[in-house]
Amino acid sequence: MPQAGQKYVLVMVGLPARGKSYTARKLARYLRWLGYPTRVFNAGELRRHKLGTGYSAAFFDPGNADGQRALEAMARESFGQLTDWLLREGRIGIFDATNTTRERREWIRKLCDGRGLEPVFVEVINDDPAAIEENIRANKLGSPDYEGTPLAEAVRDFRRRIAHYERAYVQVDDPEGSYLKLIDRHRKIVSHRIDGWIPARIVGFLTNLRITERPVLLTRHGESSFNQEGRIGGDPPLSPGGRGFAAELGAYLSRRFGGEGAEVWTSTMRRTVETAAPLDLPVREWRSLDEIDAGICDGLTYEEIRRRHPQEHAARTRDKLRYRYPRGESYQDVIQRLDRVIIELERQNSPVLVISHQAVMRALYAYFADVAAERIPHVPVPLHTLIELTPRAYDCIEERIALTADAA
Amino acid sequence: MPQAGQKYVLVMVGLPARGKSYTARKLARYLRWLGYPTRVFNAGELRRHKLGTGYSAAFFDPGNADGQRALEAMARESFGQLTDWLLREGRIGIFDATNTTRERREWIRKLCDGRGLEPVFVEVINDDPAAIEENIRANKLGSPDYEGTPLAEAVRDFRRRIAHYERAYVQVDDPEGSYLKLIDRHRKIVSHRIDGWIPARIVGFLTNLRITERPVLLTRHGESSFNQEGRIGGDPPLSPGGRGFAAELGAYLSRRFGGEGAEVWTSTMRRTVETAAPLDLPVREWRSLDEIDAGICDGLTYEEIRRRHPQEHAARTRDKLRYRYPRGESYQDVIQRLDRVIIELERQNSPVLVISHQAVMRALYAYFADVAAERIPHVPVPLHTLIELTPRAYDCIEERIALTADAA
Repeated sequence: MPQAGQKYVLVMVGLPARGKSYTARKLARYLRWLGYPTRVFNAGELRRHKLGTGYSAAFFDPGNADGQRALEAMARESFGQLTDWLLREGRIGIFDATNTTRERREWIRKLCDGRGLEPVFVEVINDDPAAIEENIRANKLGSPDYEGTPLAEAVRDFRRRIAHYERAYVQVDDPEGSYLKLIDRHRKIVSHRIDGWIPARIVGFLTNLRITERPVLLTRHGESSFNQEGRIGGDPPLSPGGRGFAAELGAYLSRRFGGEGAEVWTSTMRRTVETAAPLDLPVREWRSLDEIDAGICDGLTYEEIRRRHPQEHAARTRDKLRYRYPRGESYQDVIQRLDRVIIELERQNSPVLVISHQAVMRALYAYFADVAAERIPHVPVPLHTLIELTPRAYDCIEERIALTADAA
Repeated sequence: MPQAGQKYVLVMVGLPARGKSYTARKLARYLRWLGYPTRVFNAGELRRHKLGTGYSAAFFDPGNADGQRALEAMARESFGQLTDWLLREGRIGIFDATNTTRERREWIRKLCDGRGLEPVFVEVINDDPAAIEENIRANKLGSPDYEGTPLAEAVRDFRRRIAHYERAYVQVDDPEGSYLKLIDRHRKIVSHRIDGWIPARIVGFLTNLRITERPVLLTRHGESSFNQEGRIGGDPPLSPGGRGFAAELGAYLSRRFGGEGAEVWTSTMRRTVETAAPLDLPVREWRSLDEIDAGICDGLTYEEIRRRHPQEHAARTRDKLRYRYPRGESYQDVIQRLDRVIIELERQNSPVLVISHQAVMRALYAYFADVAAERIPHVPVPLHTLIELTPRAYDCIEERIALTADAA
């Protein structure tokens, strides 16, 4: 069984254009957000960086000894960078390369064993020709390898490159140890000897990951009476300005969704429930979306906290991410309880509007926008502003919509 | 995608003596504990109840038309009881039968489709002869089917029964829809088209389930100054009596584990951390183990709550399971946040002592002892008493150890 503090190497396995990099990046973002230092090391990027671009399929032919030597050297160098980083400061390294031969994987396993690292193979299998075609067109033709190559010629060449890998490909098998197989766009998942909290979180995440493009809308509640007084926490009602925002939000969403095809999630607190009241959409209340619990500082202004609890104020200023209010929560605590919300959001096929609170919204936003942990408590999330996020394969489109004149 | 409130049928699939009933009961207990009304319907039990016992392997021979008709009738009747209960009041029905033919599963699927129920096949595959032998000896020979039969003869007969099922067995395949395959004692898990919050929880639970027999020890913190005053919540230190209990506990655990091979989990609150201080074992603090948050009633005595918040007092008395303290938690909230603790406990191969609080301990105890939801808030968990639970295949051994003279 893995030790507490165990460091993991997630070894991607699969033919080109199967979605390895997509999965690697999604996983890295999720694991970083949960608080585990995670980095993706991509052998192809290193190759392009070191050997330059413009190599055609012939370079990848298993019969081309020079090409094979060069590819092998790049994979080894990339993996060396991964282990260096992991042993120095990382918790989880993701090795994004094809790793399609058993020899390569044996070599990785031996290096891991010798360093106390735990390898988990993550094999992406997807043989639907339409999905492969889409992946090639969306992600491969823009690669520097094909700069200046006519489109049809580039597609042909990339297919030849895949064929070269296919000749040597051997799928991961039980004697190789811990693995996950993601088959047919995650519709089927095989897990073998998956043990430990982090691997279990990875399985839970991947099981629920959909590959649908649909927006997630985030907003804080409308202004509350506590916002007017500068007090934190509590369970105050909306101010007249806050009710104005709720009405504006309702009108905007009616125009946009016409009462259908979207859902609203709120916390259990009065100010978010009141913000959702004018909306013509189904509403679900989540306790996990409640504002950070300020413990003994609940109901105070920041000035009062500074005066009455100077040591707390100083400790919080020093490390806002890890600082936990006495009898309350830290930002890290909030992130842990939002895990379930993120997994539910990833499962959705249709748009969701989340109405929550400043700290909660910072944490949710950080997941989608891949904000570094230390910066999460400082993400600007003004009142009366709707943030629309559309996650895509490798990035996230963001739009901010100010809904009332007094948005600030 | 499943609807909110979707009702599920978990259809066990597999040869006899593979651990279907073990998995069915573990799942039922977990799902009930999470708050979903769940029941197991076992076709074999119905058969023994209706047709009597003492049928030998010949009865199960696919060539025995009378036997096959009788078995089929029993399976249909048992499944009818399941759907009746599910449509009336249940959320999840578990159909514990072999269901080894595709025709049977097709029939189940059609009945589910027509009633808006979502079937998920749960196939248990385990071909290790030693494990099968162990299962037969532990679970089958005590069956009323073999009352009065000599041991060796009963084993031989049961093996013949399995052989009859093997002739007709067809494993679940992708076109059959949503399924889980648990292979080789859960070491390998295949999930196909698993979608929705409840199925995802089931996968998470089964991925982490170990089949090791090891005790879980539960205790409340030592007596605190608030216990002396009859106040709830707060973050008080231990009383002198509480410190005495901590010392006794330390001595007991040293005798028992000698500082090795066990772990201690506490909440983040002073009274549990202080209780763990004298223990000679590694300690891990969990925020999820903190006491139920009493919100606006935190720090009050029950008498003060009755006087100052009479409506709250009355509402809590009416429904202690679902009642949520204003700005605080309900028992149901506590159970949700303990899900992660239970899954971690199920993963452990060695003993764990959990030092927590009254409401938390009731919820943890309820999981192991399968206490009905409504009774959870009333489970007696006295101070200064160690509860030792050893979960086994179909039950849980419980021992209560009073550690100081003043345990009450």
